Amino acid sequence: MIETPVIPRVSETDGAGHINNTVIPIWFEGGRTEIFRLLTPDLQFRNWRVALVNMNVDYLAQTYFQERALVRTWVAKVGNKSFTLDEELWQGDRLCARGTATYVYFDYHAQEAQPVPAEVRRALQSHIR
Amino acid sequence: MIETPVIPRVSETDGAGHINNTVIPIWFEGGRTEIFRLLTPDLQFRNWRVALVNMNVDYLAQTYFQERALVRTWVAKVGNKSFTLDEELWQGDRLCARGTATYVYFDYHAQEAQPVPAEVRRALQSHIR
Amino acid sequence: MIETPVIPRVSETDGAGHINNTVIPIWFEGGRTEIFRLLTPDLQFRNWRVALVNMNVDYLAQTYFQERALVRTWVAKVGNKSFTLDEELWQGDRLCARGTATYVYFDYHAQEAQPVPAEVRRALQSHIR
Amino acid sequence: MIETPVIPRVSETDGAGHINNTVIPIWFEGGRTEIFRLLTPDLQFRNWRVALVNMNVDYLAQTYFQERALVRTWVAKVGNKSFTLDEELWQGDRLCARGTATYVYFDYHAQEAQPVPAEVRRALQSHIR
Repeated sequence: MIETPVIPRVSETDGAGHINNTVIPIWFEGGRTEIFRLLTPDLQFRNWRVALVNMNVDYLAQTYFQERALVRTWVAKVGNKSFTLDEELWQGDRLCARGTATYVYFDYHAQEAQPVPAEVRRALQSHIR
Repeated sequence: MIETPVIPRVSETDGAGHINNTVIPIWFEGGRTEIFRLLTPDLQFRNWRVALVNMNVDYLAQTYFQERALVRTWVAKVGNKSFTLDEELWQGDRLCARGTATYVYFDYHAQEAQPVPAEVRRALQSHIR
Repeated sequence: MIETPVIPRVSETDGAGHINNTVIPIWFEGGRTEIFRLLTPDLQFRNWRVALVNMNVDYLAQTYFQERALVRTWVAKVGNKSFTLDEELWQGDRLCARGTATYVYFDYHAQEAQPVPAEVRRALQSHIR
Repeated sequence: MIETPVIPRVSETDGAGHINNTVIPIWFEGGRTEIFRLLTPDLQFRNWRVALVNMNVDYLAQTYFQERALVRTWVAKVGNKSFTLDEELWQGDRLCARGTATYVYFDYHAQEAQPVPAEVRRALQSHIR
């Protein structure tokens, strides 16, 4: 499990008084940096290897500006050309949101999905929930 | 169908060169203002009536900074205490992303979901796909 | 003068109930696309030619989610290696914010500022306030 | 001095490959939470006491996605109804941006600036650079 602490920002709240729902995907993506590093060790965008194909978020409880938050990230499964992550957002003992993100292993030059290389597969599998 | 034009911004791109995936939920939420107005005619947050419970996005094609975009929004269905929207993001004749968003009709003072009032239900149903 | 219409989004408000102050620079940058096009006609980032060196914003009145907004952009002056923009944000007849942005003409490969080419200078000067 | 660590996010980069310039004001505002807490100890927006009147940022060096960052925040001066903050963004030993933010002590109900109360003034002055 990868844990990423989040300090909520005023700019991430909305007029209804809580963290805006569009911020949760931003925090979840922020929690994927160590996953991205498995695929692109230098994190340089010219070597970027993933493209998102699906994102799903269940909003379970309101997320507050006033409390620190924690994003937890796991690998749910690794397919031939894609992999899926499980993600949770916590504030204290409150599970505020739960999501999945499915990426394809992508060659931006060829503009096509490619099989996940064996060593990347092994690295991803070490984060299986 | 509600159509909302979008002029992409540099700040919405990312290092991989296209519109960042977390921006699509922001544009989709931007396309819901006329839906929010059905529930809260003055759009004042103290009268806000909805809370998001699920968001799902399929990313179908890359979204480019260089082209104007269009968000299309429909009501997919209206339940007892909730309703679901269908959303599409287009650039020219390219369908870049497709999503759903499910909201509950929510009383922020009582902090609980409530039945969708009959007149709101009728207004929502006029936008059924 | 370049005019860029803005439809405020819920995600751009904050808990104090209005458009968050960090959104104004985002809207102002959104108003610079036609300026960027003068420098990079295809708007491709591999041909990007500017780097921001200073931004200043005066917040004059609250900016509301409920009203459409308009960004107005002018060229204030063109120097040897840099140029400065004047920017205003309006809602109806209310001037909500006023800003300046100074860019250098930048070669990202050489990583250095360079003189503004004569034809770019002429194009910029056609937008002088 | 208040220090706020920042883990850059992919969504905060732009097509030119670095952290987008509009993100720096967002990070700087994120660094002001402990200042906001001096004015509104429970950080509840219904008790919010500040309104931004000016923001200025000098961009000194490119800010990279690949490195952790640090925001440093000081009080520069406290006036009768306003106060000014000094802010710096660092990556390692590189000073990437430097800014100021001027707030008025604001009564949102009366919609007017008011004198900074003596105890708030003392608390702010303890953070003078």
